[in-house]
Parts: sequence; structure tokens; C-alpha cells
Amino acid sequence: MNTTLIIGLVAASLTTFAFLPQSIRAIKTKHTKDISLPMLIMIEIGVVVWIVYGSLISDIPLLAANSISFIFVTITLVLKLKYG
Amino acid sequence: MNTTLIIGLVAASLTTFAFLPQSIRAIKTKHTKDISLPMLIMIEIGVVVWIVYGSLISDIPLLAANSISFIFVTITLVLKLKYG
Repeated sequence: MNTTLIIGLVAASLTTFAFLPQSIRAIKTKHTKDISLPMLIMIEIGVVVWIVYGSLISDIPLLAANSISFIFVTITLVLKLKYG
Repeated sequence: MNTTLIIGLVAASLTTFAFLPQSIRAIKTKHTKDISLPMLIMIEIGVVVWIVYGSLISDIPLLAANSISFIFVTITLVLKLKYG
């Protein structure tokens, strides 16, 4: 594996799993007031459109990364809609 | 411009500008308690590593999208560090 590929995978891992700590925090605290709803909606729709794009160009890493993101962003969005 | 490219650009625009409403909210409310600091740090480092990766593979859209993201994520991160 060359250095460039490793750097790409590090970048993808960081942005893919970023919403894991956010969803854990929202589950624990039951507080989501400071999180921007438009931000969550934009990321949620964005991730879905990335999945559509990944399917169209048959890009497995793009599909995999965004499918994982979708789980954590959805959890955060559902909690934001619940707690306000 | 074909449909696949347009779908890719829509996905990129949504995820690139998502932190704009979040940074505006943080500026207005001066409250960032519910935002996860590890989430912001992961996205901030992730975006920087995407910029490095974009430079290495000379990908202008990747560089452009992540440079824009960097601005809004940095604003949100600085406000999170300030307001806690």
C-alpha cells in the first residue's frame, strides 16, 4: 500500500466516523439544542446523494464510507428531532 | 454535464456547506455545549488530511470542497473551544 493511499484512507476514516462521538454524546446527554438542524439535514441528504453517486459510478469505498456515516448521522438527526 | 456528474456535485455541495449553518448558529447563540468536541476534531483533522490527499493526487474538486469545509469547521471548532 503506498503512502498516498494510506493518507486517503486516514482522511476517509476520520470523516466517516466523526458522527460516532456526536451520536454517543446526544444519547448520553439527551441534549441536542446547540446542534444545527439544517447542518444535520444537509449532511443526511448529502450522504444519501453520495451513496447514489457511489452506486452510479460503482465506487465501493465511497459506498462503504457513506453507508457507515449514514448510521451515525441518522442517529444524531433522530435525537435532534426528538430533543429539539 | 451528465446526470452522474450533477449528482456528484450536489452531494459535494451539501456536505461541503453543511457546517455553514452550524457555524452561524454557534456565532448567534454563543452556545456549543451539545456539539461533540471529538466530532469537530475528527472532521477538522479529516478535512486537512483530505486537502493533503487532494494535493498529492492533484484533485482540484477535492481540494476546493475541503478548503471550503475547513473554513466553517474551523469557525465552529474555535467557538466550541471558547464557549465549551
